[in-house]
Amino acid sequence: MTRRSFLGTLALTSVAPRWSAQVRGRRVNIGSLIGRITNVKLYGAERPWAGANRVAYSDADVEARGYVMRLMTAAGVQPRIDAAGNIFGRRPGSDPSLAPILFGSHIDSVPNGGAFDGTLGALAALGVIEDCDFEGIGTRHPLEMVIWAHSEHVAFNRGLAGSRIAAGDVAPSDFDEVWNGMRRADAIRKIGGDPDRITEASIRPGSVHCYLELHVEQGPVLERLDVPIGVVEGIVGVDRHHVSIAGVSRPAGSTPMDERRDALVAASHLTIAVRDAVVRAAAAVTGTVDRLDMEPNAPGMVPGTVRLTIDLRGMSDAPLRAIAADIAGRAAAIATGTGTSITIAEPSRSAPVATTDALREAIERAAASLRLKTAPLASGLPHDAQRIARLAPMGMIFVPSAGGVTHAPDEQTSPMLCSYGADVLLRTVLDVDRSLPDRLGGPAGAEA
Amino acid sequence: MTRRSFLGTLALTSVAPRWSAQVRGRRVNIGSLIGRITNVKLYGAERPWAGANRVAYSDADVEARGYVMRLMTAAGVQPRIDAAGNIFGRRPGSDPSLAPILFGSHIDSVPNGGAFDGTLGALAALGVIEDCDFEGIGTRHPLEMVIWAHSEHVAFNRGLAGSRIAAGDVAPSDFDEVWNGMRRADAIRKIGGDPDRITEASIRPGSVHCYLELHVEQGPVLERLDVPIGVVEGIVGVDRHHVSIAGVSRPAGSTPMDERRDALVAASHLTIAVRDAVVRAAAAVTGTVDRLDMEPNAPGMVPGTVRLTIDLRGMSDAPLRAIAADIAGRAAAIATGTGTSITIAEPSRSAPVATTDALREAIERAAASLRLKTAPLASGLPHDAQRIARLAPMGMIFVPSAGGVTHAPDEQTSPMLCSYGADVLLRTVLDVDRSLPDRLGGPAGAEA
Repeated sequence: MTRRSFLGTLALTSVAPRWSAQVRGRRVNIGSLIGRITNVKLYGAERPWAGANRVAYSDADVEARGYVMRLMTAAGVQPRIDAAGNIFGRRPGSDPSLAPILFGSHIDSVPNGGAFDGTLGALAALGVIEDCDFEGIGTRHPLEMVIWAHSEHVAFNRGLAGSRIAAGDVAPSDFDEVWNGMRRADAIRKIGGDPDRITEASIRPGSVHCYLELHVEQGPVLERLDVPIGVVEGIVGVDRHHVSIAGVSRPAGSTPMDERRDALVAASHLTIAVRDAVVRAAAAVTGTVDRLDMEPNAPGMVPGTVRLTIDLRGMSDAPLRAIAADIAGRAAAIATGTGTSITIAEPSRSAPVATTDALREAIERAAASLRLKTAPLASGLPHDAQRIARLAPMGMIFVPSAGGVTHAPDEQTSPMLCSYGADVLLRTVLDVDRSLPDRLGGPAGAEA
Repeated sequence: MTRRSFLGTLALTSVAPRWSAQVRGRRVNIGSLIGRITNVKLYGAERPWAGANRVAYSDADVEARGYVMRLMTAAGVQPRIDAAGNIFGRRPGSDPSLAPILFGSHIDSVPNGGAFDGTLGALAALGVIEDCDFEGIGTRHPLEMVIWAHSEHVAFNRGLAGSRIAAGDVAPSDFDEVWNGMRRADAIRKIGGDPDRITEASIRPGSVHCYLELHVEQGPVLERLDVPIGVVEGIVGVDRHHVSIAGVSRPAGSTPMDERRDALVAASHLTIAVRDAVVRAAAAVTGTVDRLDMEPNAPGMVPGTVRLTIDLRGMSDAPLRAIAADIAGRAAAIATGTGTSITIAEPSRSAPVATTDALREAIERAAASLRLKTAPLASGLPHDAQRIARLAPMGMIFVPSAGGVTHAPDEQTSPMLCSYGADVLLRTVLDVDRSLPDRLGGPAGAEA
């Protein structure tokens, strides 16, 4: 890929608005938004055109959090850090009996990541509050922005850590875990949290009216559809099947082809079978062999052992299970054919999480008010929103990622598209405040 | 595999001699041979039933070398260490104008290796000289045993180091290489060599009448054929093709199946194609993908890059090149089909080495005198003999490895089979001394 300067990229991709939304009225300040995204990226980035490097709990993460809190303070939004290190900022509503409308995202990044992943939604949330102030818009519900701590799965064992803790998913043993020479308890202190009072970070179900998140798609679907706004149907369930293939390692030169039990040959058939089973099922499922390690992995030796992981993702359980059964059947035949033994462990599962109908409808109305096309799509990656869905109705807005690139320096969403996404978030917040019932109901569904 | 004590293994496998050689006369002392193999294995082995651990230049290697040199001295064979660390021991012949008949093997091992690999041939060489002494047999040629230093490819970058240096394949830069905290020059000093006089270790072509080596097969062929003696036709050529597959790494959950450029799917097709191309060629060739590494090898990410190595081995170049061309054609189709790019670098090549006709015939006569069946076979693994073949006529004798196991604690060759191998070596040496021309000719051929 051509390396271009970060600012050059923004300039180049800001042309050609095919879905031009020439609508006056409530708009998030796009100049501020893009300038702030650019500034956040410079914390930890070696050069302006290098990847984002704000791994959670790093010095760059702490510095970027400080920058965003200064922006909040300047905008009259007092930042509050909870015991988990999540940053909240509230703008009061007119009805003190109503729970806040919560919206935001994260600003930590993967190593050498993209500028927009998380940061777009986090800074658009501030932009929403600023625009309400600028235009003198009052809301019935309090508006509360949030920047979740440690969302990317880089530091420590469990990602989405800030929102996970908010959802009450935390164990005392977590705090003794050491990563990068740092205890988790100290890491949380480093970003202003308080591990000794961690239970205070739990969000009580019902205490939030709803949660909304704007995020880049991190996939190619919206761009391919030529649609600027994705209305997220839910976050896929993930079944990870850990597979162990036992063959026999012998010297390659002295072991005739018909006497081999080559674990890599078996793994190769299985990798192709996974793809074939998923493609044939023609369901909205992805299937990937994403990890593979073999032994002895040595010159002149037939591979004796392969361990690999099959990652299946989809919005509903039935096709995931049907495909897993298909793969298991094929694996048995492959084992027989290759003289190996193939063991597939019970998968680790995270259940699919559906977004709330009423919020999807509000997002559609907001996009329609801006004359922006929408498309429904599932999120194939985890988001903080999936944890918060346990506590409150939840909705997500996606904007396209150029070429589907993410977690890389080349990740791009044009300023125009960022603007559309922020405006849809703003208008959805206002729509929810005015038109939706004061109680949207319980948490979002666990399955579509 | 059942874990049995090392001595127990020897006892259990010493029964059932199907090729019983009830022949009187010249025999290597099998009790001494097995006892010594057992003793050598105890240097560096954590427990009697653990694998051999005498990596070249380790303390255990040095101790085992000391033990063998004491055995040589006790047998009246004065050990001499050359500048490369190879150990020689000569028994004079009656005709001072004749070059020595050289025979031996190595005693260094891979980590957690087998007891017989190398050690059988090295100690059988001593047994041959002892039997000649015991029976008062004089030879016209001097008999010279050799224990090559650093034969296994574990320490430093280039294996077969002692015999390689003897063949003149040594560069000044080799001595600065550091492995395991040790400079190669110091490693050679540690085993009694002298890197400052390394050129003195070169063996002048014509200064050795011939070279013979007894070794375990390290493969399943002889056992499958139910034949105790393999007459080695040559040592295979090895072409190693380094392959780089470039796909595109994207999040698995957000990248639809039909938009993927999955490097592991391409690598899987290629691995199967390698096997298929070799099997279809129906030549005496093996083909193996023996190394594979992929990136990012991370949960939830489509594999973006795979680097793998295709190892092709055979006794003649033509089928190796035809199969490589077949694989290259299939790789191009796989790249197109998977949207990846596949680059196959020019292979690293080691040429096949044929054994000398007259020596194969002498081995056949020796086996026949013991009423032992023989089978011709190629060595699929490198041996010191392939280096020495540059300097002198060369022959190799194989005995079966149970189950084809090698480089593992379970490597086994029964005492009976060890005895047969040693006796064939003894009788071949005597046959060569008496019946073959004083000059067998030049070095062994470079290709069968």
